[in-house]
Amino acid sequence: MKARIALRQLELPYERMTVDLFARETRTPEHMARNPDGRVPVLELDSGAMIPESGAILLYLAEGTALLPGDRLERARVHQWLFFEQNQIESSLAVARFLVLTGRAEKYRDVTQSLVARGHGALSSLARGLADDRPFICGDAYTVADIALYAYVHCAHEAGADAREHGTIGAWLDRVEATPGFENDLAPFPPHAMAAS
Amino acid sequence: MKARIALRQLELPYERMTVDLFARETRTPEHMARNPDGRVPVLELDSGAMIPESGAILLYLAEGTALLPGDRLERARVHQWLFFEQNQIESSLAVARFLVLTGRAEKYRDVTQSLVARGHGALSSLARGLADDRPFICGDAYTVADIALYAYVHCAHEAGADAREHGTIGAWLDRVEATPGFENDLAPFPPHAMAAS
Repeated sequence: MKARIALRQLELPYERMTVDLFARETRTPEHMARNPDGRVPVLELDSGAMIPESGAILLYLAEGTALLPGDRLERARVHQWLFFEQNQIESSLAVARFLVLTGRAEKYRDVTQSLVARGHGALSSLARGLADDRPFICGDAYTVADIALYAYVHCAHEAGADAREHGTIGAWLDRVEATPGFENDLAPFPPHAMAAS
Repeated sequence: MKARIALRQLELPYERMTVDLFARETRTPEHMARNPDGRVPVLELDSGAMIPESGAILLYLAEGTALLPGDRLERARVHQWLFFEQNQIESSLAVARFLVLTGRAEKYRDVTQSLVARGHGALSSLARGLADDRPFICGDAYTVADIALYAYVHCAHEAGADAREHGTIGAWLDRVEATPGFENDLAPFPPHAMAAS
């Protein structure tokens, strides 16, 4: 969804191909050739080159646009929050949400509880980063860091952690959703996700 | 250590300040002002500006140097592996290593086992990325992606996962250590780490 939000806001035409992780299509030799880590998303360029990792895709797409500042220090701020998202938000809230939505939260209760606790810590950090009424996470400008953070923060309640409990986050989510061309097209988990898990 | 490796290889003078996480110095208001996520490392520039997140620090330092390619697609490869490191390596092996070295692996056994299993999966992905005899993770050139990956991969055995079991990784670790000016100055956990945990 992060890549699609950026592609639409940058008005870049794209085609969406589904690689069904619940059918283990992400673990085939064909997909491993696209991404040795065997996961989605992967951006395929017109040249055939493949770019895995949502953060790398966002930085590639945003290069030279308003979604990524040209100044070295301002770009470092965007990088800071992109790495924070992958290290603290995705690794906790996205994994917990996956366990909940595939019906495995009970079986892996200690792990899920630990992930949700870490997720709340990460949301507190994000709330501190958004303090002082800064409209977006890197300041006045909306960047790909906001897109990356939005993805798993806006649906954190599905993992068992309500992001809007954390002070500044609710108003920021609203501001992100109000940016021109923003569209949240989060897909529901497919019906066979439970069976395949 | 990632930042220090890059600083030395780029021959940039630096001063190392210790913020002791075991004494909770990373959670003070003073440190939160440096990094709202309350963690280390943070790079303080001569201007006083603060850059948290090891990946953001590496990209900032490497800008315009041989450690970061100028080409947009080649840079996307570096970003790909930097994000992979934060999302798959650090979040599994570094956390497991922390639990082991602070004597908490037994108390949090399910969590630790789950982290080590995820770590082995990540090492398999890295080994696939290093296949086809490519000397470094992004190809012929040694980049900050190698520095980032080296840090928690070379000491994965301390987390209970030997990285050198994974085919191509051993020779790559040796190549990284043989780059000009490379110095592994990993600090041991301080004696009070066990007591404070």
